[in-house]
Amino acid sequence: MIRVAIIGASGYTGAESIKIILQHSRAKLTYLTAIPAECGAVEDVFPQFRGRCDLRIEPLELGKLAELADVALCCLPHKVSMEFVPKLLNAGLKVIDFSADYRLKDASVYEKFYAVKHTDPDNLARAAFGLPELFREQIADADLVANPGCFPTGASLAIAPLLEEGLIEPDSIIVNSVTGASGAGKNPSVKFHFPNMNENLFAYGIGTHRHMPEMEQIASEIAGTEVRILFQPHVGSFDRGILSTVYSQPKEDISAERLLELYHDFYSSEPFVQVRREAPGLKDVVGTNYCHVFPTVVKGRVVCFSVIDNLVKGASGQAVQNMNILFGLKENLGLQ
Amino acid sequence: MIRVAIIGASGYTGAESIKIILQHSRAKLTYLTAIPAECGAVEDVFPQFRGRCDLRIEPLELGKLAELADVALCCLPHKVSMEFVPKLLNAGLKVIDFSADYRLKDASVYEKFYAVKHTDPDNLARAAFGLPELFREQIADADLVANPGCFPTGASLAIAPLLEEGLIEPDSIIVNSVTGASGAGKNPSVKFHFPNMNENLFAYGIGTHRHMPEMEQIASEIAGTEVRILFQPHVGSFDRGILSTVYSQPKEDISAERLLELYHDFYSSEPFVQVRREAPGLKDVVGTNYCHVFPTVVKGRVVCFSVIDNLVKGASGQAVQNMNILFGLKENLGLQ
Amino acid sequence: MIRVAIIGASGYTGAESIKIILQHSRAKLTYLTAIPAECGAVEDVFPQFRGRCDLRIEPLELGKLAELADVALCCLPHKVSMEFVPKLLNAGLKVIDFSADYRLKDASVYEKFYAVKHTDPDNLARAAFGLPELFREQIADADLVANPGCFPTGASLAIAPLLEEGLIEPDSIIVNSVTGASGAGKNPSVKFHFPNMNENLFAYGIGTHRHMPEMEQIASEIAGTEVRILFQPHVGSFDRGILSTVYSQPKEDISAERLLELYHDFYSSEPFVQVRREAPGLKDVVGTNYCHVFPTVVKGRVVCFSVIDNLVKGASGQAVQNMNILFGLKENLGLQ
Amino acid sequence: MIRVAIIGASGYTGAESIKIILQHSRAKLTYLTAIPAECGAVEDVFPQFRGRCDLRIEPLELGKLAELADVALCCLPHKVSMEFVPKLLNAGLKVIDFSADYRLKDASVYEKFYAVKHTDPDNLARAAFGLPELFREQIADADLVANPGCFPTGASLAIAPLLEEGLIEPDSIIVNSVTGASGAGKNPSVKFHFPNMNENLFAYGIGTHRHMPEMEQIASEIAGTEVRILFQPHVGSFDRGILSTVYSQPKEDISAERLLELYHDFYSSEPFVQVRREAPGLKDVVGTNYCHVFPTVVKGRVVCFSVIDNLVKGASGQAVQNMNILFGLKENLGLQ
Repeated sequence: MIRVAIIGASGYTGAESIKIILQHSRAKLTYLTAIPAECGAVEDVFPQFRGRCDLRIEPLELGKLAELADVALCCLPHKVSMEFVPKLLNAGLKVIDFSADYRLKDASVYEKFYAVKHTDPDNLARAAFGLPELFREQIADADLVANPGCFPTGASLAIAPLLEEGLIEPDSIIVNSVTGASGAGKNPSVKFHFPNMNENLFAYGIGTHRHMPEMEQIASEIAGTEVRILFQPHVGSFDRGILSTVYSQPKEDISAERLLELYHDFYSSEPFVQVRREAPGLKDVVGTNYCHVFPTVVKGRVVCFSVIDNLVKGASGQAVQNMNILFGLKENLGLQ
Repeated sequence: MIRVAIIGASGYTGAESIKIILQHSRAKLTYLTAIPAECGAVEDVFPQFRGRCDLRIEPLELGKLAELADVALCCLPHKVSMEFVPKLLNAGLKVIDFSADYRLKDASVYEKFYAVKHTDPDNLARAAFGLPELFREQIADADLVANPGCFPTGASLAIAPLLEEGLIEPDSIIVNSVTGASGAGKNPSVKFHFPNMNENLFAYGIGTHRHMPEMEQIASEIAGTEVRILFQPHVGSFDRGILSTVYSQPKEDISAERLLELYHDFYSSEPFVQVRREAPGLKDVVGTNYCHVFPTVVKGRVVCFSVIDNLVKGASGQAVQNMNILFGLKENLGLQ
Repeated sequence: MIRVAIIGASGYTGAESIKIILQHSRAKLTYLTAIPAECGAVEDVFPQFRGRCDLRIEPLELGKLAELADVALCCLPHKVSMEFVPKLLNAGLKVIDFSADYRLKDASVYEKFYAVKHTDPDNLARAAFGLPELFREQIADADLVANPGCFPTGASLAIAPLLEEGLIEPDSIIVNSVTGASGAGKNPSVKFHFPNMNENLFAYGIGTHRHMPEMEQIASEIAGTEVRILFQPHVGSFDRGILSTVYSQPKEDISAERLLELYHDFYSSEPFVQVRREAPGLKDVVGTNYCHVFPTVVKGRVVCFSVIDNLVKGASGQAVQNMNILFGLKENLGLQ
Repeated sequence: MIRVAIIGASGYTGAESIKIILQHSRAKLTYLTAIPAECGAVEDVFPQFRGRCDLRIEPLELGKLAELADVALCCLPHKVSMEFVPKLLNAGLKVIDFSADYRLKDASVYEKFYAVKHTDPDNLARAAFGLPELFREQIADADLVANPGCFPTGASLAIAPLLEEGLIEPDSIIVNSVTGASGAGKNPSVKFHFPNMNENLFAYGIGTHRHMPEMEQIASEIAGTEVRILFQPHVGSFDRGILSTVYSQPKEDISAERLLELYHDFYSSEPFVQVRREAPGLKDVVGTNYCHVFPTVVKGRVVCFSVIDNLVKGASGQAVQNMNILFGLKENLGLQ
């Protein structure tokens, strides 16, 4: 039985991680931590776990952590995470980190987009990028996995086959995404106040969203050449899910049927990626770790649609998928 | 042209009042005020008014108010309002107050439910209760109108015919209401954070909601005897509207057809109350100043359904209806 | 491994049953049936099961059923079900029936509310009523379980402790419920067309809802005396969940604290009923088999709130809970 | 007083047109028609008009129409409209047609996308295209106005300044739009059944949407050269509004500030187009005839955001704007 600690258990990805591990046949929750203001019995912090989990969320003690857990799902925010991850590793745990702190291999890009100096470059260099469908072999031997961002997960799976085959112009990609409001986290704000957000839809992070360089890093690594991506996120009045519509220019004419074949081949052995023959909807994947993709051709351009649940495949589910790999389990164990 | 000031124009009822007055053929906005932190061009505070209103929201100056306006729609919160209303009256304006401060005729009840001493008992005694369908004659001559609460408006219209006819047991009334989230106002909070409120529904104010004594006061006045009401509000994941389901025990058997006749007669000359023959839905009234009611009999009990838009008939629309009465205009002018 | 057939697998309760059984460690899906027009690969009928279930939904063949399955979850509609259940039983299976056909012990009440003659009175007489928290001992030995209606489940759990203790007047109960739109099933209609249902809320089934006699039967059995209930359902603009607010008149004064104790005692060993100390929300239970209840006292009346997921505790989850009992498994196996 | 007939009054654009004309100070409804199955008192067809409109919706009689009305808002569906419009014109009315039948100047394009022969080429040739901000001068003298599609309205206003100035590559435009579900009309369907549509989002009309050639026609006319547009619509779980995110490649580098100046100049005298300095949201325009646009530059590409209410500026509001022009009234009369 894998003993799992969740660091920063009081937020949405913490809750989703608790939910998933509670259903996992080979892993169990042993230690949940948060800042003191957000500690308490799990069932008080999250009423949906009443009767389902009798743990408490406690302030982190490293000695206790070392004793109680084999792996930490580290759900801390950006910048905070890199203060704690070295300690978690030193305590002897494997770590799957949900923040952006170990995703961007070029610390200068990190520092530009996150406006803070990177304080843990050694672990940054060693961290595996936890998108199993694209970088599975790196993950198996790692002790630190950088769990990808939600938008980069959906967008990268939508275009990876094109990039690996070198079929599209590397500076032609536009990723237009719409996410549910859970992506904003649990802190109340004017924008996400129900009477403002409900029945609404708007763009944000125009030209500045931090997932843009992450997408470019992934895409460039797959393509073996520098790829530039224009990423535009929007937020809509629903809880969960990301729909990405990805436009790109093929180098040569390609047919929709050829694209479908290519995608089927590329993902044929992937448990969590399903290639569709029509446009997928959010409800096809919400609550699951699946990504549905549909590639096609419109007026000579390639248009790919992908949907994921931002809290599952975009966060906690993918983390458990990575955990399964780290511990040599079947990759989809405990995931639906 | 009636010159209208809105005091506390930066909240939801302020915005709704602006919207209505902008369409009013005999009234115009002349002065909008708020606390300094919420001042600015209307189009910056409320982007939906870009191109529709070129006023600024400014800190209140009483001299300016006296000079610019004939009537004040006072959208201040409870407790704050009674500090300002005497000044507005002294400035020579008629005042329609949206707060609870002038609704409860018994100051001791006010002080119990609002936990503060009433500081303006003289005006409290003089204020008319602004529910025109039930107290129209008091309103016409008033210079201060207490605009009713949203829940009391819908619930009182649902049962007034029963009470006036003395048909129901005066201690048997249960008002079960569900309101949209705009009722909570514009300040972000954990409960109304979109990912919490969306797809959710819960009760609140159990046994303590401040609209309960207001309902009892209205009902007792209509019935001419003391009426006790059990009022239970809930909030659902929609923007606007209140559905009240009101249960009561008739003194003697009554038929559904007889009830419908009674209601038709009672409301036959009311422009804004429509008696239905089937259950009304929120969408039948949202965006309008109408109240739809449907009374019927189930297993010997009277069950009445009523729907209103909490921001229109439950607040700003009713205020304009009162304003029309105060100034001798057709009661539904500028209202839809 | 229990081999599970789902009869009528193409609707919402069919899909929810598939989802739950896929996660069950001691049961597996072996046979899925529907009318010919709704047959096909599960992943085509329900895209959310792509990669998760490779069965087909097929027209029912009784020989195949007898060979392949130990238990049938019968998700057929009212009236259709009683044609098939005898055949399923004759095929040697245990049956958990989701329809109303085996719930009402008095066939004349059934015939009045469902406007059709009951054609299987023998099995009706033998069927256990599958609300485990109240009738567990009857279920264990049954071969036919009538899975309760969604509204009766939530409402009955809300008031069972009061009824068993004889604390309330048996003709004073009012059940005011709001359900999500999935309760209406998957067939498109004018009322549930998105632009009509969204941001809407309305009552239906006024005085005629078929769950009213079912509630009365349960309540009367618990109370040991005839209980009359006024049940009023409403439907709101959300997918899942039922909130019931249940009003009743205590025979003698009772305190809120005493009520909480009573409920805690009554449900102390129940895995799926949680007694809360504040109003529960739908989101506390959606996606789970739990029922959260909160009893309190307002102005001398008892008011109880209960929330369930109508498709889980109100349908498929409760069916699996019953299946676990039938097969001697831990009652909450495979349920969250 | 302009006497207005609405032909096809029983759908969503009919209802929105009724609502707007009811508030118009210089126009009044005189005749409402629909197919027999959808006739009846307005207040029965649309409960929201109880007490607001006492007309009946009747089967169309041309003699009555000629006698009663000066202008027809023709809300019939595509293909049906061109059978009726010649008759409406012959009856001596001005006609504003909501369908696509008079929008595409090249009948062969119409026939390709609508799969039917055009039967009224003469009136097609004479019809003005009713997007006042771009083609105002043509409208004033017309007796037949083709009211634009909802998507083309929002998208065209988003890029018109770029096209007129010749700043972007004419084959580089991608229009990514998300509409609310009211765009699908009032007929129930599987896709728009509430439990399917709610909390969902998906693409449709991939490569085939009929608004694509309409956008290209408008854009080509403004640019004075052939423009090709890749248009991809999506539908989300909200009632009203369209957000279009429009990507294009500038011929030469251009700054965001320069773009804002250009747009401010272009739309400086337009009452209904507001140039924003940040991303607009649907709630900034829903319920109004306004279009908010925000142009900016990201990574060398021009990205423009526009929002409209699909039923107002995208349909009935724009029709009334056109009606005001046809009758020499102030263009924004009766519109908010």
